[in-house]
Amino acid sequence: MSTAMCPGSFDPPTNGHIDVIRRSVSIFDKVIVAVIRNPSKSPMFTSDERVDMLRELFSDEPKVEVDSFEGLLVTFAQTKGVDVFVKGLRAVSDFDYELQMAQMNHTLSDIDTVFVPTSPEYAYLSSSLVKDVGRLGGSVDGLVPGDVGRLLKERWSQ
Amino acid sequence: MSTAMCPGSFDPPTNGHIDVIRRSVSIFDKVIVAVIRNPSKSPMFTSDERVDMLRELFSDEPKVEVDSFEGLLVTFAQTKGVDVFVKGLRAVSDFDYELQMAQMNHTLSDIDTVFVPTSPEYAYLSSSLVKDVGRLGGSVDGLVPGDVGRLLKERWSQ
Amino acid sequence: MSTAMCPGSFDPPTNGHIDVIRRSVSIFDKVIVAVIRNPSKSPMFTSDERVDMLRELFSDEPKVEVDSFEGLLVTFAQTKGVDVFVKGLRAVSDFDYELQMAQMNHTLSDIDTVFVPTSPEYAYLSSSLVKDVGRLGGSVDGLVPGDVGRLLKERWSQ
Amino acid sequence: MSTAMCPGSFDPPTNGHIDVIRRSVSIFDKVIVAVIRNPSKSPMFTSDERVDMLRELFSDEPKVEVDSFEGLLVTFAQTKGVDVFVKGLRAVSDFDYELQMAQMNHTLSDIDTVFVPTSPEYAYLSSSLVKDVGRLGGSVDGLVPGDVGRLLKERWSQ
Amino acid sequence: MSTAMCPGSFDPPTNGHIDVIRRSVSIFDKVIVAVIRNPSKSPMFTSDERVDMLRELFSDEPKVEVDSFEGLLVTFAQTKGVDVFVKGLRAVSDFDYELQMAQMNHTLSDIDTVFVPTSPEYAYLSSSLVKDVGRLGGSVDGLVPGDVGRLLKERWSQ
Amino acid sequence: MSTAMCPGSFDPPTNGHIDVIRRSVSIFDKVIVAVIRNPSKSPMFTSDERVDMLRELFSDEPKVEVDSFEGLLVTFAQTKGVDVFVKGLRAVSDFDYELQMAQMNHTLSDIDTVFVPTSPEYAYLSSSLVKDVGRLGGSVDGLVPGDVGRLLKERWSQ
Repeated sequence: MSTAMCPGSFDPPTNGHIDVIRRSVSIFDKVIVAVIRNPSKSPMFTSDERVDMLRELFSDEPKVEVDSFEGLLVTFAQTKGVDVFVKGLRAVSDFDYELQMAQMNHTLSDIDTVFVPTSPEYAYLSSSLVKDVGRLGGSVDGLVPGDVGRLLKERWSQ
Repeated sequence: MSTAMCPGSFDPPTNGHIDVIRRSVSIFDKVIVAVIRNPSKSPMFTSDERVDMLRELFSDEPKVEVDSFEGLLVTFAQTKGVDVFVKGLRAVSDFDYELQMAQMNHTLSDIDTVFVPTSPEYAYLSSSLVKDVGRLGGSVDGLVPGDVGRLLKERWSQ
Repeated sequence: MSTAMCPGSFDPPTNGHIDVIRRSVSIFDKVIVAVIRNPSKSPMFTSDERVDMLRELFSDEPKVEVDSFEGLLVTFAQTKGVDVFVKGLRAVSDFDYELQMAQMNHTLSDIDTVFVPTSPEYAYLSSSLVKDVGRLGGSVDGLVPGDVGRLLKERWSQ
Repeated sequence: MSTAMCPGSFDPPTNGHIDVIRRSVSIFDKVIVAVIRNPSKSPMFTSDERVDMLRELFSDEPKVEVDSFEGLLVTFAQTKGVDVFVKGLRAVSDFDYELQMAQMNHTLSDIDTVFVPTSPEYAYLSSSLVKDVGRLGGSVDGLVPGDVGRLLKERWSQ
Repeated sequence: MSTAMCPGSFDPPTNGHIDVIRRSVSIFDKVIVAVIRNPSKSPMFTSDERVDMLRELFSDEPKVEVDSFEGLLVTFAQTKGVDVFVKGLRAVSDFDYELQMAQMNHTLSDIDTVFVPTSPEYAYLSSSLVKDVGRLGGSVDGLVPGDVGRLLKERWSQ
Repeated sequence: MSTAMCPGSFDPPTNGHIDVIRRSVSIFDKVIVAVIRNPSKSPMFTSDERVDMLRELFSDEPKVEVDSFEGLLVTFAQTKGVDVFVKGLRAVSDFDYELQMAQMNHTLSDIDTVFVPTSPEYAYLSSSLVKDVGRLGGSVDGLVPGDVGRLLKERWSQ
């Protein structure tokens, strides 16, 4: 049995994130979505809100567990008995950065990282781009799940 | 008849920007230079100053129109009847980021982006690098048009 | 009025090629599809067959002209009064090679090249990959236009 | 339970290949090493010899199965009930090509590909580089497993 | 006789920096390590502390001189009679940025830059990654020299 | 005193090669240009012709020695007492391949490789592109030194 962990900020989760998690579910026995609580950044949604959104999105998927963590990713992964990290890859510049992180995490913990290519139709998506588009008045339909889109609109209209 | 739009911050315009705009003029019937007004950043020059610099630089070129915008690029482009965005490409890391923006803009508006490779002699130029060099006392001759260089020196000597 | 040229081997034309040519048609006044006749390679289809396939595919599009050439691309382009070359870009490794060709062509002729990003859903397509898939018995539906698919099957069944 | 497939020519298997297969074993329940029989190329070792080398190398690893195939990879994978392809990634240019293959294979079969970064110390290794070094009289110790090195020396001394 | 300069923030020096400097020592007659004093950033260690750490690390190496500078790198290099800059290269995204800086520095001063590939085992290392790992409670053994590790622990425990 | 080696096929030497060798001369005490004799390829010029061209081009430069070699580059370099290999870098795809070769050569011999970025105006140049252009009737003026251009024209006119 193999347990995979998908770490990220998910501020907010996009259709690209959903795609990578769904692909992980079809490959691994258990998938832990690990939401980074980062007190030094100013996220749009609190870590609790992001955990709730992701739990709602995968409420029909018993293999998925959603949790948040603070501190070193590898420490959290070791307490959870994780076998492998899964990261989506969109572009070459992602690859360079993610490879650095993968090698560092392997040095710190012996946990490997595998990369899943994002579906071509989501290759241009990122949480920050979604927030830029919405903040400037563009539609985020098709970029994020419907429920996330509604929460984004509420937040921007405040 | 095809109308192209060259969006950017142009803070300040460099010889690399001028090169891409001149190439666009030789290809398209009309070229709109779209200066991003971004209230959240602290530009060196106001958007009005940047528009004035660019209008002066292309005062002899009737096919070029210079304007500034706020909000979503595609919304501004649609009000202007733009057929295509033009972006200069200097390096591979540019390409990744610009490809993401191009796909997002196409999703939001059906307006395509074409990429024009920057002349090799300007491939190392960027507005921020020019500002770094000048701020530290280096010469910006050959990096920006003469008039822009004079304005930069005035600003740094204040 | 601007005339664009889309050069390539088109052995055979794929849905990715069609996508780039259709995008060019929406941007430029005239689009010349230039099929490379290369006597030293062994193409699957003769240059006449490739020209015929492309003419058939764009028979409803008066702005498109299809022709074949031998020798230097820039020489052919100059006799046709071309303003700009258009190349599809699928990936970063494409970009490096295509940038080299663009700079060489500009050195030889002053004709610029613009790059059009391929639609994400065709980013993995190439003529040689299509031929590999078909030769090994895979289906090429969705990878090439229907008529091209039929010609490929005839060729492979011989 | 998840079954992974590691396809390749393995002509010959290098320490980089061994590394990727061993990492796959630690992540997946079963790992099928799929040796490409390619009648049109002239490999150094026959597909039977390559299968034997790999079986010998993993004789102590019950989760590994080694087999060869002809024709389309996805067809072979479907007959074997494979859930996911695993490919080692050494460099950015690998990534571009492998991403293309991954998207094509997903289009043809719905089987995903995950990428495992090669250990940094094997990032420069490839079968063809090993053959070049050995053919020119260099030592391949540390580049391939000991038994493979002995077979290579026999072959070169003929 | 050739004098090389290795510029950087070195906040703190990592095993990757040490590796590049040691390689430079084996190639050039004299190696000046140039620590950037940057009053606008908030470094973890003052420039004097960073100079001291590096002098200590290379106290047994008479060919190495360590100094700090303010302002334009090329101005400092010219006063020191430098023939060439040396930069470590870890990844492709490094390459793009560093190539830009190299071309700008050559334009400003005619001093060339050569790139030394980092040892594969340090390719994932950067000062900021080391600081992230340590701040979150991870071990930095093997990432930085022992003395630097002790100073980091003191700093974090304050 | 440091001795650098610039290896290559130089079939023929281009202005890009000359540029990299001249830069090496300004950095190192001695520069050995090492022409690869490769009996399995069909070069346009024999290795003796290529050595003669390069000796002629650097006849005024006492620090340059030109020689040809067969077999493993590192073996030849060791007999010559070489401290470092120098390679020109034009593009990112170069970088990947050259990094692999550099790491292999370091594994085989402990000789490091440094990379010199090609001047932007020669970044698109390669021997094979020059041969393609000339074979198809294009002018190679400005791409290769004058004497090399004359030899190329003689060869093509035969």
